[in-house]
Amino acid sequence: MIKITLPDGAVREYQAGVTALDIAKSISEGLARKVLAANVNGQVWDATRPITEDAALKLLTWDDDGGKSTFWHSSAHLMAEAVEDLFPGAKFWVGPAIDKGFYYDIDLGGRQITEDDLRKLEKKMNELAKQNNSYVRKAMPKAEAVQYFTEKGDEYKLDLLSNLTDGEITFYTQGTFTDLCRGPHIPTTAPIKAIKLTNIAGAYWKNDSSNKQLTRIYGVTFPSQKELDEYLAMLEEAKKRDHRKLGKELGIFTMDDDVGPGLPLWMPNGTIIIEELEKLAKETEVKGGYKRVVTPHIAKESMYLTSGHLPYYQDSMFPPMELDGTKYYLKAMNCPHHHKIFAAEPRSYKELPLRLAEYGTCYRYEQSGELFGLMRVRCLHMNDAHIYCTREQFAQEFRAVNDMYIKYFNIFGIDKYVMRLSLHEPSKLGQKYINEPELWLETEEMVRQVLKESNIPYIEVPDEGAFYGPKIDVQIWSTIGREFTLATNQVDFAQGRRFKLEFTNKENSPETPLIIHRAPLGTHERFIGFLLEHYAGKFPAWLAPVQVKVLPISDKFLPYANSILESLKNADIRGEVDDRNEKIGKKIRDTELMKVPYMLVVGEKEMNEGKVAIRRQGKGDAGVKPIEEFIAELTAEIKARRGE
Amino acid sequence: MIKITLPDGAVREYQAGVTALDIAKSISEGLARKVLAANVNGQVWDATRPITEDAALKLLTWDDDGGKSTFWHSSAHLMAEAVEDLFPGAKFWVGPAIDKGFYYDIDLGGRQITEDDLRKLEKKMNELAKQNNSYVRKAMPKAEAVQYFTEKGDEYKLDLLSNLTDGEITFYTQGTFTDLCRGPHIPTTAPIKAIKLTNIAGAYWKNDSSNKQLTRIYGVTFPSQKELDEYLAMLEEAKKRDHRKLGKELGIFTMDDDVGPGLPLWMPNGTIIIEELEKLAKETEVKGGYKRVVTPHIAKESMYLTSGHLPYYQDSMFPPMELDGTKYYLKAMNCPHHHKIFAAEPRSYKELPLRLAEYGTCYRYEQSGELFGLMRVRCLHMNDAHIYCTREQFAQEFRAVNDMYIKYFNIFGIDKYVMRLSLHEPSKLGQKYINEPELWLETEEMVRQVLKESNIPYIEVPDEGAFYGPKIDVQIWSTIGREFTLATNQVDFAQGRRFKLEFTNKENSPETPLIIHRAPLGTHERFIGFLLEHYAGKFPAWLAPVQVKVLPISDKFLPYANSILESLKNADIRGEVDDRNEKIGKKIRDTELMKVPYMLVVGEKEMNEGKVAIRRQGKGDAGVKPIEEFIAELTAEIKARRGE
Repeated sequence: MIKITLPDGAVREYQAGVTALDIAKSISEGLARKVLAANVNGQVWDATRPITEDAALKLLTWDDDGGKSTFWHSSAHLMAEAVEDLFPGAKFWVGPAIDKGFYYDIDLGGRQITEDDLRKLEKKMNELAKQNNSYVRKAMPKAEAVQYFTEKGDEYKLDLLSNLTDGEITFYTQGTFTDLCRGPHIPTTAPIKAIKLTNIAGAYWKNDSSNKQLTRIYGVTFPSQKELDEYLAMLEEAKKRDHRKLGKELGIFTMDDDVGPGLPLWMPNGTIIIEELEKLAKETEVKGGYKRVVTPHIAKESMYLTSGHLPYYQDSMFPPMELDGTKYYLKAMNCPHHHKIFAAEPRSYKELPLRLAEYGTCYRYEQSGELFGLMRVRCLHMNDAHIYCTREQFAQEFRAVNDMYIKYFNIFGIDKYVMRLSLHEPSKLGQKYINEPELWLETEEMVRQVLKESNIPYIEVPDEGAFYGPKIDVQIWSTIGREFTLATNQVDFAQGRRFKLEFTNKENSPETPLIIHRAPLGTHERFIGFLLEHYAGKFPAWLAPVQVKVLPISDKFLPYANSILESLKNADIRGEVDDRNEKIGKKIRDTELMKVPYMLVVGEKEMNEGKVAIRRQGKGDAGVKPIEEFIAELTAEIKARRGE
Repeated sequence: MIKITLPDGAVREYQAGVTALDIAKSISEGLARKVLAANVNGQVWDATRPITEDAALKLLTWDDDGGKSTFWHSSAHLMAEAVEDLFPGAKFWVGPAIDKGFYYDIDLGGRQITEDDLRKLEKKMNELAKQNNSYVRKAMPKAEAVQYFTEKGDEYKLDLLSNLTDGEITFYTQGTFTDLCRGPHIPTTAPIKAIKLTNIAGAYWKNDSSNKQLTRIYGVTFPSQKELDEYLAMLEEAKKRDHRKLGKELGIFTMDDDVGPGLPLWMPNGTIIIEELEKLAKETEVKGGYKRVVTPHIAKESMYLTSGHLPYYQDSMFPPMELDGTKYYLKAMNCPHHHKIFAAEPRSYKELPLRLAEYGTCYRYEQSGELFGLMRVRCLHMNDAHIYCTREQFAQEFRAVNDMYIKYFNIFGIDKYVMRLSLHEPSKLGQKYINEPELWLETEEMVRQVLKESNIPYIEVPDEGAFYGPKIDVQIWSTIGREFTLATNQVDFAQGRRFKLEFTNKENSPETPLIIHRAPLGTHERFIGFLLEHYAGKFPAWLAPVQVKVLPISDKFLPYANSILESLKNADIRGEVDDRNEKIGKKIRDTELMKVPYMLVVGEKEMNEGKVAIRRQGKGDAGVKPIEEFIAELTAEIKARRGE
């Protein structure tokens, strides 16, 4: 008999050799139907693999990352089976699960794959899936595996094998397809109920352009047609909401070859959004007791040697500027500069927590191939702050930071979010993690408690902490259900010592502060990219570059329209008049395209009565009101930062 | 007879050979007594030098830069005479006038000069000045001059002579001292009525540390003791107001070796001032129809080759960062980035004037030796903007910029200012100046007219324009009378073409806009440095980092003090409570040192009545008022940005 510990701490006894699927069945048949894989002692396994020793077990379903990636990797094998069936002689390189779906790199002997082929493959995959074939794991000595692929004449798998150490090799078979594979896989093909092959691309073997080009087929699968339909609709919607397209149409940002890739120039409309976000952050941070600082964008090499960013982080930094024997680096992070401000004066415990905030602009050298619109850039305007506190103050400070996140989520209508708490691995203390076992456990537990008490959805990820402390990644979903990693929130026990930061504690002794790194709004670049998609460019009034457009029905009402514009300006509302000699219908359509939240149509009647006919973006007529009333209502809406 | 044209355009006839001094006497004896030199056809001359041809003449007095520098250069000769008298055998290198006073580099044969020596030299100079000796100009062939100094054994003057072309050399003699000198000089020593030798320093011959070290004696002289006394008092006051000293005491900025020289880190108190200045600028610029942009701090080499900053400005830029075969430069100016934003969309005349503003941070590589506190730095936060306009719009735009300067001067209580209008020199068109004769004359005249109409004090400086158009330097004086160059305001015909900027004009043809570069508040660095001296750190309430300090008489009143702090915060007033266990006298003294504009002392009586006892910084008691009344008054003061 072996002992199986479940996530809730319950311990059950089973015969050695029991599988996760057996255990699921022993709990409920319904659960068993959902099981895709299992986390056994920290490793993702086949749900059908016998467990022979005591183990901590977590059953993985579609709701778990590990469940999804196993599902998709098994779908890649299913696609390979279909390819082998339709294109005999195809040879296979690798077929991993990716962020959303899977791909397989295939040598089709020069055959071009068409859209039509994809539809045929999908059909074949559906047939094969319905056969409910099991994914069968088979272990064998490496020599035997080499013999198998030598006979088959598969130079790709032989190449993979040559890189594996001698010993046991695993194969997986479903239906007629057998692949060299580490696994794990789902129990059978049956759960793969909805299939879409999304894309064909060329991919050089081993990513080396001097090698042969293979055909990469991308696909995505789901346990139900409904989920696939929703996903495809989301993709369609995401295309319409592409932040690069909207960013250009709405005059948010531009890129220029002479400035350089990944270095957006913020146009006037984008700058208004930046300034509104900064205003929100500043207000929120002032209330939170933060103090603002401004630091240079460069520093000498010695600073980054002290911080340890050099040489470890060097590849992500721009190269140095060397002059008069000194190397200067563009900052890739604000922390060292803030530490210097902490260190500029003798500090007492009475001054803690000291919270230093800055919209500091950092520069990171992302590889050209990784640059993507505002999402992956080389210039980052960060909503940054560093909180220097005592151990006693830590939990409260961390809670306040979390509350700030929640506050922002509410303002921006972000309903779905998760915090990923990355922990240390005790066996790697002193190597991957700073050797402070007590502080690790203490802060991890404090963070965990705060997350629990605040009812924040979170997951724990073992062995992914930062070097200097536990790390919280914040993941949010846009209104159309796309996931974004927004920001990190980190605990730091290391930098304080490296920079010899000290405060005089109550006992009159020097003590090193704990440091919290936090950036709830992430960077302007990524956050505005997110917002463009999230709002489809239809910003709420407080963020909209133009809040009100006044549309005179004809030139005759231009003076009245201009007087309304004056009233708007006096109320600090961003307005414009459409003074073009165009029909009112065209004026309305053009203003709709620019996604201005309010239109005020003015003609004879409105002028005579001192009123405005209000139209809301995308919603049409919203009544006729005296201008003062409209301004009062809009002012309240802006002040409250109300969304829809 | 020759014709002499005076600055007011009047033309008078005189005998050829007349001197400027004669002409002054012919106008009034009083004027003649004030004449120090003369501008004859654009060159500064001795007032005693015969004029032999028709000439444009401007008499130069102490009120003219040319008058002052002539006075100080003559004072250097007077000092040399005293040195020769007290230290026979002294040899002289060069003795120029400088910004404020003069110096002379002297070989004293190894003798050390003491403070006591300076007092003796001053006494001797006073004696010599009273002799009312004339400065006598004598021209001779170079060979004769060489013979003179060879006989005298003066290797320094021989070295100077060796660098002069053959031809006429001039000597000047006053009293017993004769010097090789280009001149000009004042008529006699008599006007030098007040003398102060301020400093002794070592200076390597020809600035080369492998050469002999000479003794440099600095001095300053005035036409009256009163002016000297005022100047010395100003220096004394300036020392107290030293922005580096105040900047540290008040927590405004700090420097750090690991960040680098000339790269200030702005502490929380300094950042508050920065943000208030930016708020003022943004408000003013929104009203002025500016649009804000945000641009990266770097750009590719190609951009600066287009702008022409490379290679001409390269020495003032940080060296490039080279990666993947591309060179990136830190920006030393914002204009190219703004031009790219102009170029990002097709532009129509209807969009002009387009005014793009940014608090862009630029980096300039000033030599280490030139760095000085906030006054000469390598990191510059510029109140920058570029106005793209048509020729027709230029005058109005330029006037609006000037009005903005005046508005700022009023807000900051800057009573004394001058604009220096630097013009082109027609003979250098196509070389030193862009070859647009018509545009030069047109814009110079427009600028001149605006300056005249606005009653702005200004001077015209020939042959000092920028390459691409006329330039206006703005000079301001602090409350203690020290002069600062604040900002430049430039017209630009060149960059538009270099960047191929175009708009479609009314005739539907492409046209290149004129560009105005303007930065009324200069840089944060220099402006806050100026303000620290100007206000002696006693910032008006709207700028003060802490606006109100609440001082409870004892711990018993701490809750009441904290409730007042809450009220202040709710009214967006920056307040603090002094919760230390200290006597009220000490609390007041410490708050005075931090130059907080308002102190609210609270004890039994105030608490019971819901009032506060107000003290103004440096002025003491200002009455007892209900807290609401105080807050209302202070809010109005802050909103109006009132000074003293």
